[in-house]
Amino acid sequence: MQITRQEIAGMDKRFRANFINSLSGFKSANLIGTVDMQGISNLCIVSSVFHVGANPPLLGMIMRPHTVARDTLQNIKDTEEFTINHVNSSMVRQAHQTSARYPSDVSEFDAVGLSQYKSTLLNAPYVEESKVRIGMQLRSIQEIVLNKTELVIGEIIEVQMDNKYVLEDGFIELEPMNGVVVSGVDAYHSTQIIDRLSYAKPDASASSIRGHAK
Amino acid sequence: MQITRQEIAGMDKRFRANFINSLSGFKSANLIGTVDMQGISNLCIVSSVFHVGANPPLLGMIMRPHTVARDTLQNIKDTEEFTINHVNSSMVRQAHQTSARYPSDVSEFDAVGLSQYKSTLLNAPYVEESKVRIGMQLRSIQEIVLNKTELVIGEIIEVQMDNKYVLEDGFIELEPMNGVVVSGVDAYHSTQIIDRLSYAKPDASASSIRGHAK
Repeated sequence: MQITRQEIAGMDKRFRANFINSLSGFKSANLIGTVDMQGISNLCIVSSVFHVGANPPLLGMIMRPHTVARDTLQNIKDTEEFTINHVNSSMVRQAHQTSARYPSDVSEFDAVGLSQYKSTLLNAPYVEESKVRIGMQLRSIQEIVLNKTELVIGEIIEVQMDNKYVLEDGFIELEPMNGVVVSGVDAYHSTQIIDRLSYAKPDASASSIRGHAK
Repeated sequence: MQITRQEIAGMDKRFRANFINSLSGFKSANLIGTVDMQGISNLCIVSSVFHVGANPPLLGMIMRPHTVARDTLQNIKDTEEFTINHVNSSMVRQAHQTSARYPSDVSEFDAVGLSQYKSTLLNAPYVEESKVRIGMQLRSIQEIVLNKTELVIGEIIEVQMDNKYVLEDGFIELEPMNGVVVSGVDAYHSTQIIDRLSYAKPDASASSIRGHAK
């Protein structure tokens, strides 16, 4: 089946949202923790967190100013801090529920039943139930002119996790922590390892390095 | 365990690359197909494709100018076209092998044993073995000043896939196509559906919509 740009433009709005959101492939599932100028905490699930670079350690995410994530975006602009908390399989429903349009004076932590955890290094709250918690300092916000979304990039200033999941070569085993992935706008999946493959070279086939790194 | 920014800065370079690349969570696995001005095709695996917006339908990716992906980036700049092809579990080794530093005059299609498929709508080659093939027209390239990477954004002009995987509400079932996810820089995983959840509202808990959409 071939679907052209004209057919995409003619799709019903919700159909198109489901369809196009599925096309990038699987996505990360993270909860963004922030606090506003009055001290009210905010929590919001996003599937748009992505790797920008390792040195300096940068993560980015696309935010839509007019969606339910607008409180999160405003808090990041005001406080220049946020946390990224991996979603695991035992908190999928609570994490999804943070996407409801709660009033600005309601903390999604209370509304969905997740616990705040505060670090000494930043005011933005972590999700205690999350097994990988990342403290972020805002480094830049640039507009994506094409559709008026905003690219938020932060620098990692703290990571909280159990060190037994970090292998000797630095790789983090997300799977034993039951990390989940998102597809489309509302589907959640667990994962099963296929393999880790060695650094690819033109004159040799990559081989399995699974187990070698531990 | 707490890991601070100072400890990250002090990590061995390869350890840090593995560690930081694991922190965004799971990533999409796609092959980017391009053609150069001499007609030589190029294929390159990336884990940085992400959703930018549904209307207009935009996908983005972060490219590093001085890595093996430099040919891909140059071809996109020269031809303003590229294809995005989902990696499925039966082609993981071939897809990974495209990350080797082949000379510019070698087509990675030939080198790793994947087949080109040409559409009438663009010159950039698709991967025939891929079950979701997306034709892209370049819309913008903007530098991420923080680390001199480039954010490439394209508009979807064509999608090729079997329509039996598109549900009535537009959601695409990636899992029966054996789509894979990446963690870190070299780990590949299959997925298993947990659930699809209804649109979240403040006054009600989201419920399962799996199966309802078909």
